[in-house]
Amino acid sequence: GYSARMEHAGGGVIFRQLFEPVSCTYTYLLADPGSKEAVLIDPVLETVDRDVKLIDELGLKLKVAVNTHCHADHITGTGLLKKKLYGTKSAISRHSGAKADIMLSDGDSITFGKHCLNVRNTPGHTDGCVTLVTGDQSMAFTGDALLIRGCGRTDFQQGCSKTLYNSVHTQIFSLPGHCLIYPAHDYKGQTVSTVYEEKKFNPRLTKSLEEFVKIMANLNLPKPAKIDVAVPANLVCGLHDV
Amino acid sequence: GYSARMEHAGGGVIFRQLFEPVSCTYTYLLADPGSKEAVLIDPVLETVDRDVKLIDELGLKLKVAVNTHCHADHITGTGLLKKKLYGTKSAISRHSGAKADIMLSDGDSITFGKHCLNVRNTPGHTDGCVTLVTGDQSMAFTGDALLIRGCGRTDFQQGCSKTLYNSVHTQIFSLPGHCLIYPAHDYKGQTVSTVYEEKKFNPRLTKSLEEFVKIMANLNLPKPAKIDVAVPANLVCGLHDV
Ligand SMILES: [Fe+2]
Ligand SMILES: [Fe+2]
Repeated sequence: GYSARMEHAGGGVIFRQLFEPVSCTYTYLLADPGSKEAVLIDPVLETVDRDVKLIDELGLKLKVAVNTHCHADHITGTGLLKKKLYGTKSAISRHSGAKADIMLSDGDSITFGKHCLNVRNTPGHTDGCVTLVTGDQSMAFTGDALLIRGCGRTDFQQGCSKTLYNSVHTQIFSLPGHCLIYPAHDYKGQTVSTVYEEKKFNPRLTKSLEEFVKIMANLNLPKPAKIDVAVPANLVCGLHDV
Repeated sequence: GYSARMEHAGGGVIFRQLFEPVSCTYTYLLADPGSKEAVLIDPVLETVDRDVKLIDELGLKLKVAVNTHCHADHITGTGLLKKKLYGTKSAISRHSGAKADIMLSDGDSITFGKHCLNVRNTPGHTDGCVTLVTGDQSMAFTGDALLIRGCGRTDFQQGCSKTLYNSVHTQIFSLPGHCLIYPAHDYKGQTVSTVYEEKKFNPRLTKSLEEFVKIMANLNLPKPAKIDVAVPANLVCGLHDV
């Protein structure tokens, strides 16, 4: 039996899932209760004030604002957060093409107090997609590589469905079954899944590689509405022409 | 230090927070991993199919579908769930004026496997509002009595701001500081809070009773858009004229 439970844990991590409804993006706050050091994953420009207020109220110090990839559907809040919360460093994959204070490589760790997030390269949606896994492998922040019962598109931004399939199978489905999956987006009001569930019920990634490639080639999605504004901005932490 | 952490716990509870974006309603699924018995809190008519699919995939048996109160902003999914998942019982406060299989009183317990939810009457938003607290007091489902940095309105449906203030202070703020607060709604993308935080940062309920009554009397909110449809429907588990 696997389960997802919120609890007050002495050795635990402070954790908050936050939602931005226009782009349906999840932002995640993680912090160490002892040192108060915090990491924010995938902040959105429009919700920076909400996030800063929460960080202040909880008495946290934002150490790193990290993007799972160079987003095409919203402008990142990392640049503005650096201005509002002195000392915050931005981070993104070195394969993203974007600028940041910390350029992440596969196997790197982002530490906050006695906790850490380990970086796994999971390209396919873009070349610079990473999945961030907590040190105890209880939570994985999968960006657009793996969504709940879905996955990110592969028809823009160096997308490659074969690469995405291999990333998910080797880097995410190899995690423990009870590991909680927290994606960058959800469009159906779902907040969390598990490795176990996605290996069993994901309608795309449970298929063979060949079938997956065919599914992804036939999605016929419209061009991302904000891509021409968001990508140039996100290459420089969201501060381009904003 | 308090914290909110998701984890795989052997003795834990399966827990899912689900969102319905039109009414900004949170539905909560709780289940016992051993017996697979489940409880659904505040299901919404429009998302019943999503919820039934998830319950099926997780191999759960829905025992009780419970409403924290007779909602005015959306139609409950309890009646439809009873039709789709045989054996499900509906539950609501006996002070709600609504019909259900189980009429809840203060101090009652809703059990699922080796877990339970304890009923606390928290009137004020309506006469029949309850807060559901897990047996270990780690989570409280507060309906519209206490929202994250807010609270439900008190100008409809037998609302009384003085009663709401007393309910929150005596029945919710008396819980442990680390107890997680899961409300029926959020309009800012926030998913969870704690008793500690609301006692410290709730802009309304940290005030004196006199100031709170004044704040609530001057909100000047429009009439709930769906009240004339939703309330009659919710008095009969959402199955009236649907
Ligand atoms: Fe993306
Ligand atoms: Fe309500």
